[in-house]
Amino acid sequence: MNLLAIDASSLPASCAFFRGEMLVAEEYLHNRMTHSQTLMPMVEHMMQNAGAFLQEVDAVAVTIGPGSFTGLRIGIAAAKGIAWGCGKPCVPVSTLRALACNGLCHKGVVCAVMDARCAQVYTALFESDGAGKLTPLGQDEAIALEELKQRLAAIDRPILLVGDGARLCYNSLENKENVVLAPATLQFQRAGAVGLAALGLVEQGFAPIPAEELAPAYLRLPQAERELLQRQAAQNK
Amino acid sequence: MNLLAIDASSLPASCAFFRGEMLVAEEYLHNRMTHSQTLMPMVEHMMQNAGAFLQEVDAVAVTIGPGSFTGLRIGIAAAKGIAWGCGKPCVPVSTLRALACNGLCHKGVVCAVMDARCAQVYTALFESDGAGKLTPLGQDEAIALEELKQRLAAIDRPILLVGDGARLCYNSLENKENVVLAPATLQFQRAGAVGLAALGLVEQGFAPIPAEELAPAYLRLPQAERELLQRQAAQNK
Repeated sequence: MNLLAIDASSLPASCAFFRGEMLVAEEYLHNRMTHSQTLMPMVEHMMQNAGAFLQEVDAVAVTIGPGSFTGLRIGIAAAKGIAWGCGKPCVPVSTLRALACNGLCHKGVVCAVMDARCAQVYTALFESDGAGKLTPLGQDEAIALEELKQRLAAIDRPILLVGDGARLCYNSLENKENVVLAPATLQFQRAGAVGLAALGLVEQGFAPIPAEELAPAYLRLPQAERELLQRQAAQNK
Repeated sequence: MNLLAIDASSLPASCAFFRGEMLVAEEYLHNRMTHSQTLMPMVEHMMQNAGAFLQEVDAVAVTIGPGSFTGLRIGIAAAKGIAWGCGKPCVPVSTLRALACNGLCHKGVVCAVMDARCAQVYTALFESDGAGKLTPLGQDEAIALEELKQRLAAIDRPILLVGDGARLCYNSLENKENVVLAPATLQFQRAGAVGLAALGLVEQGFAPIPAEELAPAYLRLPQAERELLQRQAAQNK
């Protein structure tokens, strides 16, 4: 299977192209530029450079959330457009699962953690056998950083922190003894890991879905909707 | 320190740009195209995309070997040219050490292994604490695959195989119990890891060298020279 993988769920944007299990090309950019300007030209440049054509792509994998609301919309719109244009299906990937694939070499617990602002985090824990097998230890969740710290404190095995909230979480921990921060090249989400996650899902029997069924999984309402609900609740009191 | 990292030591070509410890951009291409055609445009495209200028680069890191003789010459020539043009120094990085930096999340022994053809490999072993610290367990060497297999068989801790010879080595092992192959995204050399290795060297006190002192470390003579020496030895018998 030839797979195009895309991520725009957070500050970096990236894309990757796999032929089977072989990573043929990857581009990664983390410079605070607008994904709406960088992502599509990045995919086009990567495919041209790789001497590959969109018609060769068998499926498009993309991170569907959690993450930046705008970023997710850009990534999903790009994936949907390419897949629909080529008549190919999509593989939706949890951003947290993709992040955990950055830590496949770690044996122990991989904690994917993204900064959700206001002392909240998006997080999911995985058991990693260090040989490529990831087992989720729970659902993707939006919780208080304080709660995640308590959960991590209860784990006595080696913990690897990955994600744009990894450093925030690491710095806030009182006891860092069994906790390690992923190296700079693997700390943020990247399309190579999105591809690994998607290939793993397909291997486990997940059937790629039609482009029109691709939808974001925000885990919580956008700030504007949260504020609207708060105002409405206050008016109804 | 802003670091530009380059690798063309084997089938893939890649480049990466770091601001301090932050990976800003990376491009990776593994499609059997000629590095002499792809590498320089790739560096130019990446820097443009990152909104960065060569003048900002404080040092250029490059893999100096072992590896493909032609590939190393292209990578080193590119690094030398850019560094010399900008009046900036270089950080020479062993290809095997850079490969080992792909496995920083692994706790145990990291075995970097490159296919040197004719049942020979380039290899080096490292102790990795899983938290970013690599300790070489020996020198970079060109040895028979058979000898590497014997060395690995004597190690009873978890071993991670990285490099373009990793699969060859893995497939040839009789006992794979404690041996793991790096995931597809981290199996081959890539500039992000070259950058991590270079930043580590500089942190340990290595002073970047002038561009004109940059030289390849082939570990063994090119095939043409080996054959010449063999013919000369036969004539002198």
